[in-house]
Amino acid sequence: SHSINLAVIPGDGIGQEVVAQGLKILAAVLPQDVKLETEEYDFGAKRYRATGETLTDADLASLKKHDAILLGAIGDPSVPSGVLERGFLLKLRFAFDHHVNLRPSKLLPGVATPLAGQPAIDFVVVREGTEGPYTGNGGTIRKGTPHEVATEVSVNTAFGVERVVRDAFARAQARPRKKLTLVHKNNVLTFAGHLWTDTFDKVAQEFPEVTTDYLHVDAATIFLVTDPARFDVIVTDNLFGDIITDLAAAVSGGIGVAASGNINPSGEFPSMFEPVHGSAPDIAGQGKADPTATVLSVALLLRHLGYEAEAARVEEAVAADLTERGDAARTTDQIGDALAARVAS
Amino acid sequence: SHSINLAVIPGDGIGQEVVAQGLKILAAVLPQDVKLETEEYDFGAKRYRATGETLTDADLASLKKHDAILLGAIGDPSVPSGVLERGFLLKLRFAFDHHVNLRPSKLLPGVATPLAGQPAIDFVVVREGTEGPYTGNGGTIRKGTPHEVATEVSVNTAFGVERVVRDAFARAQARPRKKLTLVHKNNVLTFAGHLWTDTFDKVAQEFPEVTTDYLHVDAATIFLVTDPARFDVIVTDNLFGDIITDLAAAVSGGIGVAASGNINPSGEFPSMFEPVHGSAPDIAGQGKADPTATVLSVALLLRHLGYEAEAARVEEAVAADLTERGDAARTTDQIGDALAARVAS
Ligand SMILES: CC(C)[C@H](C(=O)O)[C@@H](O)C(=O)O
Ligand SMILES: CC(C)[C@H](C(=O)O)[C@@H](O)C(=O)O
Repeated sequence: SHSINLAVIPGDGIGQEVVAQGLKILAAVLPQDVKLETEEYDFGAKRYRATGETLTDADLASLKKHDAILLGAIGDPSVPSGVLERGFLLKLRFAFDHHVNLRPSKLLPGVATPLAGQPAIDFVVVREGTEGPYTGNGGTIRKGTPHEVATEVSVNTAFGVERVVRDAFARAQARPRKKLTLVHKNNVLTFAGHLWTDTFDKVAQEFPEVTTDYLHVDAATIFLVTDPARFDVIVTDNLFGDIITDLAAAVSGGIGVAASGNINPSGEFPSMFEPVHGSAPDIAGQGKADPTATVLSVALLLRHLGYEAEAARVEEAVAADLTERGDAARTTDQIGDALAARVAS
Repeated sequence: SHSINLAVIPGDGIGQEVVAQGLKILAAVLPQDVKLETEEYDFGAKRYRATGETLTDADLASLKKHDAILLGAIGDPSVPSGVLERGFLLKLRFAFDHHVNLRPSKLLPGVATPLAGQPAIDFVVVREGTEGPYTGNGGTIRKGTPHEVATEVSVNTAFGVERVVRDAFARAQARPRKKLTLVHKNNVLTFAGHLWTDTFDKVAQEFPEVTTDYLHVDAATIFLVTDPARFDVIVTDNLFGDIITDLAAAVSGGIGVAASGNINPSGEFPSMFEPVHGSAPDIAGQGKADPTATVLSVALLLRHLGYEAEAARVEEAVAADLTERGDAARTTDQIGDALAARVAS
């Protein structure tokens, strides 16, 4: 279709600032004949404090009408830990069946990394998004007493594991190196480990060109700092994916440049795109936030909606900007303007 | 007492080689009047293949008689993943209530790190060792069918969390910086997260001199590569501890130098000391293994048994050896001999 009907959720803290730049770049890169419609939603800490609501059924029904969602960041110190995470972010991922959580890591020339020797980093993590220890299963008995017991249940289904593993194989197949690494902890978490490993081995038969590899999650963190170049595509569960993608972001330029997509591949629900970073209340409203991660999330959004050439243009603009920027500190707005100018030209 | 009755479990792969060096250093550092008795146990892949046994009740009864246990490494590609981990390593940790899993990280001068700029790293992770997702709770239904469901249950008790948190506070209190960081994921794993956070805050009252800090596990991996100097003591659950200590080892000199103690503080059961690395079958039997991690585990063993001066001598010998070694490749035996000479002088 020649229109994009986008839900925009700026959220809290720096979310507002970075999303504004993301929209600027989106408007600049889209062809003239594509109509961009946006609707802004006020989800986040402010609305929660005012109404006690995080995400209602009516909200979900309204969001569902859009082609995609662009999110800034959700979270504020004024709200107890877990309320907005479970009540908004995870609720949305589960409600819209965002089972493919896509997190690319690419160390661009000129970008600082804490690693010595600027290794070649270019991989993508396919994190499962709707199962594992994120389901909210579990509970507490005898709370606040010396006999309290709290459990967390990781739920893994053949259906859920197979679809994300197959998605990851297809992505590996489409990349030049065609390599897929399964990350789990199958020597300790043997129930879930068997399901993940057996499913991985089964689906591998359908992709004979893809080279496969297995790493325990602890070993994976070692290779992410000693030999990140070994990775091409990684598939992993929800919690391991959460952990290794923050580490991956740190080694490949920091969370200032880490993008992500919460994807519902069937298209039954709109997919959501967001920077990996949080709302950073300490620097909010000061024009200090780096909008690059949001802009790269916009590239993922464009690719998801079929605008491959535009996605590539955004990514090239970011790469050129990071390589050619001087030492001068730039405001959020200045970075956005520079990127908008690059994609428009 | 003026004797040490040590159980020695060389195990598989390079375990044999590194344990031999550990014992060499132990013999060299102990005062003449301390009688060192050792009994070797043949646990591991070879025995499992021959007998199908990993660790019997009789084995446990025999091990229990010792003052401490020194372990090399357990694991071999010939044994399916999980069999020796769950059947031996974890069984022993649980049977002997090794609830304090101590893993120090110190970047010594002259030691290579994948991080740029040689940051100052000197912290210790206190990993819970008997709860969390390591309990083997969970199960599988409809195995091998498209309707398989596999669960893993993380079990957390007030008793288990409080004792390890208190141990960590005491360790932080005894260090110059007196800083303790709780690592969890309390915004998502809210049941276990509340228990850990509330217990941490409660025990903190008893240690007013200790500065406290909280990090989500994903954020902790970022700081471990961007600012490891910020850490002094970290306390965390079994699985998060597994993951971050491998990363911590990687940034502070590699798993060739990472030591660990599986400690039962009450002394009801013998504590076990082992290098963090595995059996490395690819280099086994070639004299290529670095025994340093085992030797540093011997230092932890000495300290645990009250030989503080000897523990410090071993650590100083390792530091000097790492600083002064030349570029020449040394065999396992040569490194052991060099360290033995240093501690004896
Ligand atoms: C905020 C939190 C719920 C979230 C997660 O754990 O998935 C975040 O860390 C992320 O990685 O997107
Ligand atoms: C081998 C495995 C069971 C073990 C663990 O996960 O605890 C290891 O990784 C470790 O860290 O000691």
